[in-house]
Amino acid sequence: MKMHDMLFMKRALSLARRAQGMTSPNPMVGAVLVKKGRIIAEGYHKKAGTPHAEVIAIDAAGNQASGSTLYVTLEPCCHQDKRTPPCTDKITASGIRNVIIAMKDPNPKVSGKGILSLERAGIKVACGVLEEQARTLNEFYVKHITQRMPFVVLKVAMTLDGKIATPLGESKWITGDPARKDVHRLRGRVDAILSAIGTVKADDPQLTCRMGKRRNPVRVIIDPNFEITPQARVLSCPPRTILVTRTPASLRKKDVLSEKGVLFIEHELERIDLSRLMKQLYEVGITSVLIEGGSSLNSSCLEAGIVDKVIFYIAPIIIGGKDSFPAVGGAIFRDIDNAIRLTRSVVRRIGKDIVVEGYLGDLST
Amino acid sequence: MKMHDMLFMKRALSLARRAQGMTSPNPMVGAVLVKKGRIIAEGYHKKAGTPHAEVIAIDAAGNQASGSTLYVTLEPCCHQDKRTPPCTDKITASGIRNVIIAMKDPNPKVSGKGILSLERAGIKVACGVLEEQARTLNEFYVKHITQRMPFVVLKVAMTLDGKIATPLGESKWITGDPARKDVHRLRGRVDAILSAIGTVKADDPQLTCRMGKRRNPVRVIIDPNFEITPQARVLSCPPRTILVTRTPASLRKKDVLSEKGVLFIEHELERIDLSRLMKQLYEVGITSVLIEGGSSLNSSCLEAGIVDKVIFYIAPIIIGGKDSFPAVGGAIFRDIDNAIRLTRSVVRRIGKDIVVEGYLGDLST
Repeated sequence: MKMHDMLFMKRALSLARRAQGMTSPNPMVGAVLVKKGRIIAEGYHKKAGTPHAEVIAIDAAGNQASGSTLYVTLEPCCHQDKRTPPCTDKITASGIRNVIIAMKDPNPKVSGKGILSLERAGIKVACGVLEEQARTLNEFYVKHITQRMPFVVLKVAMTLDGKIATPLGESKWITGDPARKDVHRLRGRVDAILSAIGTVKADDPQLTCRMGKRRNPVRVIIDPNFEITPQARVLSCPPRTILVTRTPASLRKKDVLSEKGVLFIEHELERIDLSRLMKQLYEVGITSVLIEGGSSLNSSCLEAGIVDKVIFYIAPIIIGGKDSFPAVGGAIFRDIDNAIRLTRSVVRRIGKDIVVEGYLGDLST
Repeated sequence: MKMHDMLFMKRALSLARRAQGMTSPNPMVGAVLVKKGRIIAEGYHKKAGTPHAEVIAIDAAGNQASGSTLYVTLEPCCHQDKRTPPCTDKITASGIRNVIIAMKDPNPKVSGKGILSLERAGIKVACGVLEEQARTLNEFYVKHITQRMPFVVLKVAMTLDGKIATPLGESKWITGDPARKDVHRLRGRVDAILSAIGTVKADDPQLTCRMGKRRNPVRVIIDPNFEITPQARVLSCPPRTILVTRTPASLRKKDVLSEKGVLFIEHELERIDLSRLMKQLYEVGITSVLIEGGSSLNSSCLEAGIVDKVIFYIAPIIIGGKDSFPAVGGAIFRDIDNAIRLTRSVVRRIGKDIVVEGYLGDLST
């Protein structure tokens, strides 16, 4: 791998990242056109249904595109069944001579066929430059397109001694302002937030993204016994709220909430099947979910195996108390040999707080 | 502050650090002699009762010391009531022209008098170069010499979700090998380790330093009801073990343990007074204590206000369970406004684990 290839691909990745949270269910893609060692045009995919990154860059370059090298963070598309024409045709027609790709498109409709189509047109193609970064950038996309399930992030905000609330349920504000802003940014990047009635009753949260001009995620609230009051702030739509209940006892309350725009997913099990719920969310177009609940929901989601990534915001404070609520509670505990082990964990500081991120599996391929 | 002053002082500090854990109750001190911009001799204090850093450096320089500049991490001593003669006399006699000091000696027998004595002899003295680093290096010394109490470090090894043991008491091995080695190094630096009968019963630990040729700390075990069995590994002396009990019921067991070399501190209170215990330990010459206990001891020590510094080793693993043992348990919890807030917190990685260190007060002066 050449140094300048990495530099141009890094640029393409940072262009792609500009649309973080805006492209779902599409991936983020960035493209850079280079001629004689200089960038002559750039582009990134802004939103599903709008032009692809390659198209924007090629259109910006005009006649200059001929003979240039295209750096693109994802294999160009070659299929017809979407709102925009195949990028491979556009690239071929433009006279581009080389295409450097960060990663193959995991979408089975493309996967390798885009590359093949370019090569057949006589273009030299290389794939795999900064592949890991590209994969991580589009981890939501990679998961939902390959596994047909949303990518699930579990967020915890806790004290250094692992508490998310006092025994009385006080949880505001454990972490500082910069960490809370980070959570709002996170909310702006996912399709849905999953929480539970306990959190709604304790904190009456809005669970919206209150940072910049990002779209708000759908709120999904697990409320088996339909305890929510119509005044709960999480019910003020938009954004949309989905209530997950056992067949609700009060049809009148259901009508009131339905009129407010609340959707219902009903189940008859004593304990909700969280994998099934994720599948149902996927089927209504949700490709990523952020869990923001309490000790029990965190535990249930981890035990159900639906979590792909965790983000722990840790405030350097100590509250103590054996009855304070732990980050992960629940009836289930694991012995240390069978603990959930994070992979690719990274630590950073945000304000006075500490952020630990990690994955529950290997880099998905 | 000049750049070269900082560089030479940094060297002196790193010399001082070589004797970490060896100098108690003395401070660590490093000295560098510089002439025409070059280091001509160095020294550090190796152990109480052996020559001071300045003396070693001056002796190494011989006649060359005349006209040189001395960098020393702590104000040179000027008092007689110890095993070695005053360093100020030695410095004056050597013909050293300038003395640069990192920090004043907080020992009231010296504090400023060493500087004054040098100045009276016509030597140019500057104080305060890398003072914060020097203070932190000798935080044990600064505390015990100014407050007549040991410096107390609370160590926790926990999962990312804040658990130190499963509900069944399993706690081995949450953190990895590099973190455990770090704990052994820590044990080699303190005069005593404080633990409690619960930990002894659950883990039967040795609580010794099994790293290099460091001395072992005294083990102090809180065992109000004198439940310890004579076979407990923590009782194999050396090193010495101090058992803190309410007036022991079984005099015979007490005799058996006394014969093994165990010392007793007896109290009649229902709950032990931890501040008083620290004072008692100080009075038998213990200047630093490392707490390695369980949820309750951690909580009690924090609530008693005896802790100066915490070190949390956090493994990137999750075990969950509301009945798992939290890092800090106990009956007492604080609301978030009154949480213990760490100051000067730093985060580092050790192997796969994360270390968070912080203080419970401001830099002691």
